[in-house]
Amino acid sequence: MAFELNCPVPLRHETIQMAHGGGGRMMRDLLEAVMLPAFRNDTLESRHDSALLPDPGSRLAFTTDTYVVRPRFFPGGDIGELAVYGTVNDLAMAGATPRFLSVGMILEEGYPIEELRRVVASMRRAADRCGVAIVTGDTKVVDKGKGDGIYINTAGIGSVPGDLVVGPGQVRPGDAVILSGDVGRHGVAVMSVREGIAFQTPVESDCAPLHGLVRGLLDGGVTPHCLRDATRGGLAAVLNEIATDGKVGVEVVEAAVPVVPGVEGACEMLGLDPLYVACEGCLVAFVAGPDADRAVILLRAREGGEGAVRIGTVVEDGRGTVILRTRLGTRRILDLLSGEQLPRIC
Amino acid sequence: MAFELNCPVPLRHETIQMAHGGGGRMMRDLLEAVMLPAFRNDTLESRHDSALLPDPGSRLAFTTDTYVVRPRFFPGGDIGELAVYGTVNDLAMAGATPRFLSVGMILEEGYPIEELRRVVASMRRAADRCGVAIVTGDTKVVDKGKGDGIYINTAGIGSVPGDLVVGPGQVRPGDAVILSGDVGRHGVAVMSVREGIAFQTPVESDCAPLHGLVRGLLDGGVTPHCLRDATRGGLAAVLNEIATDGKVGVEVVEAAVPVVPGVEGACEMLGLDPLYVACEGCLVAFVAGPDADRAVILLRAREGGEGAVRIGTVVEDGRGTVILRTRLGTRRILDLLSGEQLPRIC
Repeated sequence: MAFELNCPVPLRHETIQMAHGGGGRMMRDLLEAVMLPAFRNDTLESRHDSALLPDPGSRLAFTTDTYVVRPRFFPGGDIGELAVYGTVNDLAMAGATPRFLSVGMILEEGYPIEELRRVVASMRRAADRCGVAIVTGDTKVVDKGKGDGIYINTAGIGSVPGDLVVGPGQVRPGDAVILSGDVGRHGVAVMSVREGIAFQTPVESDCAPLHGLVRGLLDGGVTPHCLRDATRGGLAAVLNEIATDGKVGVEVVEAAVPVVPGVEGACEMLGLDPLYVACEGCLVAFVAGPDADRAVILLRAREGGEGAVRIGTVVEDGRGTVILRTRLGTRRILDLLSGEQLPRIC
Repeated sequence: MAFELNCPVPLRHETIQMAHGGGGRMMRDLLEAVMLPAFRNDTLESRHDSALLPDPGSRLAFTTDTYVVRPRFFPGGDIGELAVYGTVNDLAMAGATPRFLSVGMILEEGYPIEELRRVVASMRRAADRCGVAIVTGDTKVVDKGKGDGIYINTAGIGSVPGDLVVGPGQVRPGDAVILSGDVGRHGVAVMSVREGIAFQTPVESDCAPLHGLVRGLLDGGVTPHCLRDATRGGLAAVLNEIATDGKVGVEVVEAAVPVVPGVEGACEMLGLDPLYVACEGCLVAFVAGPDADRAVILLRAREGGEGAVRIGTVVEDGRGTVILRTRLGTRRILDLLSGEQLPRIC
């Protein structure tokens, strides 16, 4: 962590002032004292309005996400990590190797600079873990009462190898639906802090990068038809999106979907369905039926994929619909909820 | 404007609800009804977490900016236009041809959907004018009182031709400093609405794309050493940044800097210095001394560059410092202000 070797420039304020976003000396000092030492790399050093990146020599994946999670620190992660992993994961879901990130921050007047330092340090650690560089950024300050401490946008660029195409349009009847691990941990972890609920079995967010799992599949010779990480709206939202956009039916076996006891208990207590609770380190892979077993083995061999299982199948019937085979042996539609059970989850 | 031909999906609400950011059906409806019809293009149609872009076959410029301007509609522009032009301009300042944009929105609960439609329509028009496609996006909703209607982040990707390098490190003593037009219009236009001040001469924001001006220079055989658009902190901030990062001195002739009468009058009345007031359609080009006259001619031949003038020179002495030769014939340091004279200007 090279940035910790740098002597931070002293700042005259302990909290964010409007002038820290004003384009003047105080903004420059904030960048010099906090952002640049944390994110340090050669591209960022050029100090220009745009980062200049080498010719990728491949197609690109490009994505963006804004992170407004509340609370900003939760068991198993924080908003900084989430802002890196979330965007890295969206790139990975296109089959891309994540390469570069931009960071746009909206800071609320009065936000403690000490916490900002923790968030950017967390972003750097997360970026290093993913092998991505934070190469360009922007900071805005809004008046007290017009924000909530810190909101972070990241956009990401990845390289897409060869002629790989991964997306809802590739999904075919007969495809297997594979899940990389248990669901609902992120939502329950965030809620436990927000609502001040102590569960018997404490639950940590599953917040983690997923590009290693995708690399595992590709290196092992399995080309997934579609990949999607289950975040807002949980597993149910992902399956519904793919069913709708891919114009296929999806059948899922409820008993096959792993849920850890802590999540199960919390959901029972609060009347939530874990299939709708957000994850931040769990992917759904649609692979050709004959590749299913190999895909599970390849995922299980990678960190974060130890719990991979097949949970269902793509079918011809019921296009745009997800059918759940319940524990009771009945079949019901697993619909998209109107909203998220929990707001500001990521 | 293809998006106006689409039949908008009816929405059940007239204002943004928390559930519009929740990953469920209401979020999907908002995307279908508002975002996708406005931004429509083939890449966006693929409906995946990342946009898949063709191999650019060149180096890339990558940049991001978040827009929090208040008010959101001001004489000469709005937050949507600003969010497109601002990021396009940052790409152009690296000598890049702007290609693709991402859009990340933070909507406040209760924000009128009718206004959202106006903002996204404005973004689409601006993008079309610049020849860029909005290819990926994200929408988050925050509770009432935790935002301010709408905040927009855009990140942009551009292609950088050949081995062109434009940046503070290329600036040399003897370089001419060229300004593409008059300064201070954006700041004064925003302030006039915000503070409810009616000036004798109404001032409109100069909010405009600048990549055409850069293209004009390059096509005309002038390779600028450095380019920077004067936004937050105005012309003074830009000159100071380049002097510091390029480790050179800059001498500017105050009388040579164009200021329209409306801006001059407003600044006199309010005790502001127009050199520190934000522009959104004005660039500073550092070019080799012998290229100066040609650069001015090339800029003047392009829309938005009609008022181009040489305003100064890069010098060996006083590295990191900007010296202003005043109208009175004296010389003084044109320093970086502590903050911006006006918060939330872009």
